[in-house]
Amino acid sequence: MEVTRTNFKDSLSTVYSAIEEADFLAIDGEFSGISDGPNVSALTNGLDTPEERYMKLKKHSMDFLLFQFGLCTFTYDQAESKYVIKTFNFYIFPKPFNRTSPDTKFICQSSSIDFLASQGFDFNKVFRHGIPYLNQEEEVQLREQYEERRSQSNGSGNPSYISPNPNKGPGSVPEEHREYIGRVVFQRKLIYQTLNSKYTGVLCDDIMGFQKERYIQISKVDDEERKRRERQKQEREQEELNDAVGFSRVIHAISKSGKLVVGHNMLLDVMHTIHQFYCVLPEYLLCFLRLLDTKLMATTQPFKELINITSLAELQKQLKESPFKSPKVVTAEGFPSYDTAQEQLHEAGYDAFITGLCFISMANYLGTFLTPPRAHIPSQSKLIQPFSQFILILTPTPIPPLCPAMNTSRYAESYRIQTYAEYVQGRQQVRESQGHSTQSWDEDGWVKPHYTSPSTVGAGPTGYSYGHNRPSLGKRCVSPIQEEQPTEERLRDHTRRMEWLHALSHTPRHGQQEDQDRR
Amino acid sequence: MEVTRTNFKDSLSTVYSAIEEADFLAIDGEFSGISDGPNVSALTNGLDTPEERYMKLKKHSMDFLLFQFGLCTFTYDQAESKYVIKTFNFYIFPKPFNRTSPDTKFICQSSSIDFLASQGFDFNKVFRHGIPYLNQEEEVQLREQYEERRSQSNGSGNPSYISPNPNKGPGSVPEEHREYIGRVVFQRKLIYQTLNSKYTGVLCDDIMGFQKERYIQISKVDDEERKRRERQKQEREQEELNDAVGFSRVIHAISKSGKLVVGHNMLLDVMHTIHQFYCVLPEYLLCFLRLLDTKLMATTQPFKELINITSLAELQKQLKESPFKSPKVVTAEGFPSYDTAQEQLHEAGYDAFITGLCFISMANYLGTFLTPPRAHIPSQSKLIQPFSQFILILTPTPIPPLCPAMNTSRYAESYRIQTYAEYVQGRQQVRESQGHSTQSWDEDGWVKPHYTSPSTVGAGPTGYSYGHNRPSLGKRCVSPIQEEQPTEERLRDHTRRMEWLHALSHTPRHGQQEDQDRR
Repeated sequence: MEVTRTNFKDSLSTVYSAIEEADFLAIDGEFSGISDGPNVSALTNGLDTPEERYMKLKKHSMDFLLFQFGLCTFTYDQAESKYVIKTFNFYIFPKPFNRTSPDTKFICQSSSIDFLASQGFDFNKVFRHGIPYLNQEEEVQLREQYEERRSQSNGSGNPSYISPNPNKGPGSVPEEHREYIGRVVFQRKLIYQTLNSKYTGVLCDDIMGFQKERYIQISKVDDEERKRRERQKQEREQEELNDAVGFSRVIHAISKSGKLVVGHNMLLDVMHTIHQFYCVLPEYLLCFLRLLDTKLMATTQPFKELINITSLAELQKQLKESPFKSPKVVTAEGFPSYDTAQEQLHEAGYDAFITGLCFISMANYLGTFLTPPRAHIPSQSKLIQPFSQFILILTPTPIPPLCPAMNTSRYAESYRIQTYAEYVQGRQQVRESQGHSTQSWDEDGWVKPHYTSPSTVGAGPTGYSYGHNRPSLGKRCVSPIQEEQPTEERLRDHTRRMEWLHALSHTPRHGQQEDQDRR
Repeated sequence: MEVTRTNFKDSLSTVYSAIEEADFLAIDGEFSGISDGPNVSALTNGLDTPEERYMKLKKHSMDFLLFQFGLCTFTYDQAESKYVIKTFNFYIFPKPFNRTSPDTKFICQSSSIDFLASQGFDFNKVFRHGIPYLNQEEEVQLREQYEERRSQSNGSGNPSYISPNPNKGPGSVPEEHREYIGRVVFQRKLIYQTLNSKYTGVLCDDIMGFQKERYIQISKVDDEERKRRERQKQEREQEELNDAVGFSRVIHAISKSGKLVVGHNMLLDVMHTIHQFYCVLPEYLLCFLRLLDTKLMATTQPFKELINITSLAELQKQLKESPFKSPKVVTAEGFPSYDTAQEQLHEAGYDAFITGLCFISMANYLGTFLTPPRAHIPSQSKLIQPFSQFILILTPTPIPPLCPAMNTSRYAESYRIQTYAEYVQGRQQVRESQGHSTQSWDEDGWVKPHYTSPSTVGAGPTGYSYGHNRPSLGKRCVSPIQEEQPTEERLRDHTRRMEWLHALSHTPRHGQQEDQDRR
């Protein structure tokens, strides 16, 4: 279902109920670009630590626009043993809603735009009919502006020249005119106060005339009419506010639902979502969604051995073949269906749909290890949790293996083999020899890794348990604010999970437990 | 005529001949935004000096994209006493032409995009079919790359890892791999040299295989075949180069033609044109085009008294009424014609067309002062030159009147009247009291004005003559590089021109002279 500014309000209840009834949600975003600094491969260097990648993307990716948001809701139909899906393709554009609203600037990267254009992406739909949005700070500012105006026409409050855009606010009144403006504002306030105190049966309204001249319109009304009009005005204002908050309301609904959110290589999607619809990104990302990254899942045991290429299109192909099974999926009535034979990759809604399919195939594959095997593994299953917990602290890159291949091409077809410890140490030495502070970020966003040596991997206490900051297992995680976890600890957790997964694939006990948990 | 990447090559000869045969050219650009800093009204403050405006636009406007370029050529048909026009609407987009080509980033401003969207602007046409371009530096780099490759396969030259994009060049080879890469490059060179010196009948070619692996393809050819193939390759390379230079070729043709170029409020158009298709903007703009700004012309005597509002749409309306006359204009055969009754403002081609019409109406009005009056004043006329010379040093804002109104609204409907001297002094005092260096630019791009006091206006030698740096009158000005002229001198020139124009409207002598000049 395509959602633009034109049908957004009418579609919202459909979107809300789709989220509410879903077992899990798949998302995908399309952006106006990826990197305004280093080239994309340097930006998404697979050997970076999660912190490094986060800081790089924060620095070099956030000035682009997320202008298409795909949401695919998956609801399991127990009776028919199939998933029912609803796909939404939202077009997003920060259309200024009035002359004081933020006039967003965003960057476009020619290669990204050209790529999307070659895929038939409809830019006109984005720019002509995109749904507006506000982040939380802008929403608060707009709300305050409405309240300010209301208290002014009540003759109370402190009328001032506040505007929702701080750049256009009081700062633009030159020093030498401050006194004069102050007098005007005071007189204006006086008019409102006097009218309201002297005449109980009047209603004051700010009116803008044909030539943008401002009037105070005074109407004589009885008490009932006055209340009716005030209520009307408040409702109108609330609607205007809702319209301005726009697409952010969908994100709020996803966040509040606490449902598992599945994405493919989703760090950038999540960062853009937070940056655009919530707030300025914090120094370190504290996550408030239950997330699962299918790319990461595919590169983790037991899938790692079975899957070679983890791009979304390739992953989907491999998951159609044995030992995996394509899930049974039907499109909900009234929703346009996708034909997976005819690829429509890089439309956000379709990509979200495919991502969901990949997740189901992988999830169900985990069920084959159970005794008896189970064909359907629900998204709430404990079997899934190691993968989603892994994402909950947002480490979308796999913890680097101990012996990565250093690809030094494109100039030579040779490889230098070194341990990750050597790699990290080498990088650190280069940085130090260049006189950089070991903690400072350079052009490419490199930072000295936090851990001292990879020999600490697995050195923690043995056994399978989550740290005290994590939400307890099986509990639906609504907004678990996660403290930054030191990398060493994370490496330990990773090792633990690996051990657990290894155990899982050999011990039917876990399977039974899983079975019980589902009840 | 709409020109995109699809029909650009086929249209080029039509464009060239239209420019060649024209009496004058009108241009207009559409951009992805105006200001990434101060709001638009602060950026185009009418009280700024030309230098201030130039510096502000250079700082805050150049990261936007000029993505539609309108060109309307006007050719006078003496026999029929009418202009024949050809309008071109070029869609422009910096599509990367290969993996080493520049990956341009540009900013979009929501309000500008929203405005264009509301006018039905076709963004899909820009992003899917826009004509690419290179500035002169990029063209040189690409040419060098081709030459480099050619000399490599000849076994001569100095094969290296040069790429046209300096960001992807040698810098990305880490220090520790330099030696290795050096060896590979050397061996490669050795292969080419040995092959070419040992075997005269072979031709070496760099080939990329299916999986992006590189081969050296060696073919056995006789001398004639070798030459034929080399010629073919050179032609192919030249064509590739031309394709990459793309739309810049149109700009080069306009510049080379030496024709009068008319625009409306054209500083931004000119700056973007230079920035995008020529080079990084210099500290001060040296102009190589003969330009005329219709907005400026309309705010200069004798038009100033007759024209109230100088926006393009309003100007066009006023120039339809007495004492002005709408010019007789027909569209050349094979070109789509515009209906001026149905406004299509903000399509660059249409805006260029309207701009040309305004210019003709104003030019012809000057003819009414001649004895006998003349209905048609050609663009080469001396009567036009004061207006175009005025632009030649690019002062698109009128020299401020001595007593400007300081509009202090939107907070109050009152005005403070002060002389320009007071205004400049006041601004300077504020800046100095804030501890700014008087020569440094602040956030809004303010700089201390160069002149010490406006009392110097008109203090120069009297009489009508142009400074020694200007091209002599009546001579077609091909590329007169203009030295930066001190503001005082410019103010004097302005005064002189005012005197001259004043004289013009009262003394038939100038009209007679004009008459003689035309023969």
